[in-house]
Amino acid sequence: MSYRGNGILPARLRSVGLDAGVIRTLAQHTHHITLAKGQTLCPACENMGLALVCQGTLIRQVGFHDGTVSSTELLFSDQFLFSGGTTSGADHNVCFRALEFTEIEWLGMDIIYQLCRENNGFLERYLEKKHRYSRMVEDHLLLRTILSKKEHLMITLAMIFSAKLRRNENAIKITIEELCTVTGSTRQYCSKVITELCQNGILINHYGSLELLDYSALKAQLGSDARRHYELFRAKPV
Amino acid sequence: MSYRGNGILPARLRSVGLDAGVIRTLAQHTHHITLAKGQTLCPACENMGLALVCQGTLIRQVGFHDGTVSSTELLFSDQFLFSGGTTSGADHNVCFRALEFTEIEWLGMDIIYQLCRENNGFLERYLEKKHRYSRMVEDHLLLRTILSKKEHLMITLAMIFSAKLRRNENAIKITIEELCTVTGSTRQYCSKVITELCQNGILINHYGSLELLDYSALKAQLGSDARRHYELFRAKPV
Repeated sequence: MSYRGNGILPARLRSVGLDAGVIRTLAQHTHHITLAKGQTLCPACENMGLALVCQGTLIRQVGFHDGTVSSTELLFSDQFLFSGGTTSGADHNVCFRALEFTEIEWLGMDIIYQLCRENNGFLERYLEKKHRYSRMVEDHLLLRTILSKKEHLMITLAMIFSAKLRRNENAIKITIEELCTVTGSTRQYCSKVITELCQNGILINHYGSLELLDYSALKAQLGSDARRHYELFRAKPV
Repeated sequence: MSYRGNGILPARLRSVGLDAGVIRTLAQHTHHITLAKGQTLCPACENMGLALVCQGTLIRQVGFHDGTVSSTELLFSDQFLFSGGTTSGADHNVCFRALEFTEIEWLGMDIIYQLCRENNGFLERYLEKKHRYSRMVEDHLLLRTILSKKEHLMITLAMIFSAKLRRNENAIKITIEELCTVTGSTRQYCSKVITELCQNGILINHYGSLELLDYSALKAQLGSDARRHYELFRAKPV
């Protein structure tokens, strides 16, 4: 199931300023997996420390022990994914489901620990990136409370398509049900908003994927609060 | 402003299984601060790596760059507080405000980094605890979406007083405004629910603090969904 990747993860880490020696070690320990549409990945089960989405789309799902599952994020290619998978405290409540064919390169927690101890600067960078990732997830959840239902749905769509357009894509393989869980809104409300956007020639609903026709019109739908937060999110360092 | 504490933090860390050598080093580097009611602490500004609330109550506040502030958590004595305060990526958006006189012992990020590198097992424990802390914050935010407004407010009150009762206290110095920001509900809705609880002889509103009269009656107000989540939260390892 796991074999060497194309070196996309080491190259990505080189771009954040890690030195050549570390990159060589990382490249030797990089694993590669592919997920078919609908397949689920539990980073803690695999003892993953750090992963990079090379291609595809993942939806981050948090499970409660009573069986309730909520989604918090969509991850696109070129985005990192962190896991809290330590041997004793493995966090099996966080999973990632592939919305389409997805390719991932990843490093085990053991090599992450080793580099944190041995390499100057790696620990600081790892902790900082991991911290930023969990703060980003938190900020998105806080926006559910700060913004109105409509504004939150609009900002989520604007972020999805802004990420897609940067990859020269204009469609996302997502169902209304999946979009609901990411925005925390009901199926009924979500359908109503999507239907309106389709009627206004902004989206096409292919029932299983959403296609963007007009990005500026989508952004124009953001209320003033959502627009402010959208600009702030876009301006943030990643 | 910062001086040696009473060794509560090192003792707390000893209880999680760290060895005597580490504890000695930690004890030498423990700082101590007190906050008056209303004072705010920014862990990143102080370059804090890990802190323990020895006495008092803190409210965790997340700021957005447009000035919006949301609260996510209440922290009581004997609870850890983690910061993402790295030199380059200091996170000034997270602050803690004291709801009453509060005493804290803490360790700088520099000594945390040093111990992560030098001491066997410290890195794993630190990452695990930090991860659990941010997952707990996330779970509480997700409950805002999963539960109804009323259930979320009730579960928040039940958790506050359950923590208080474990400390042999039955009151919390919190205003309705502060409670609103922790639960994500409006001032109007929050007041309505608190007034009902007071009329039922469950709470007394001292306008600045809430006093618990009847814990079992408060728990009986939890709906079936909130009760299930409440039991799950209580059963979780800390």
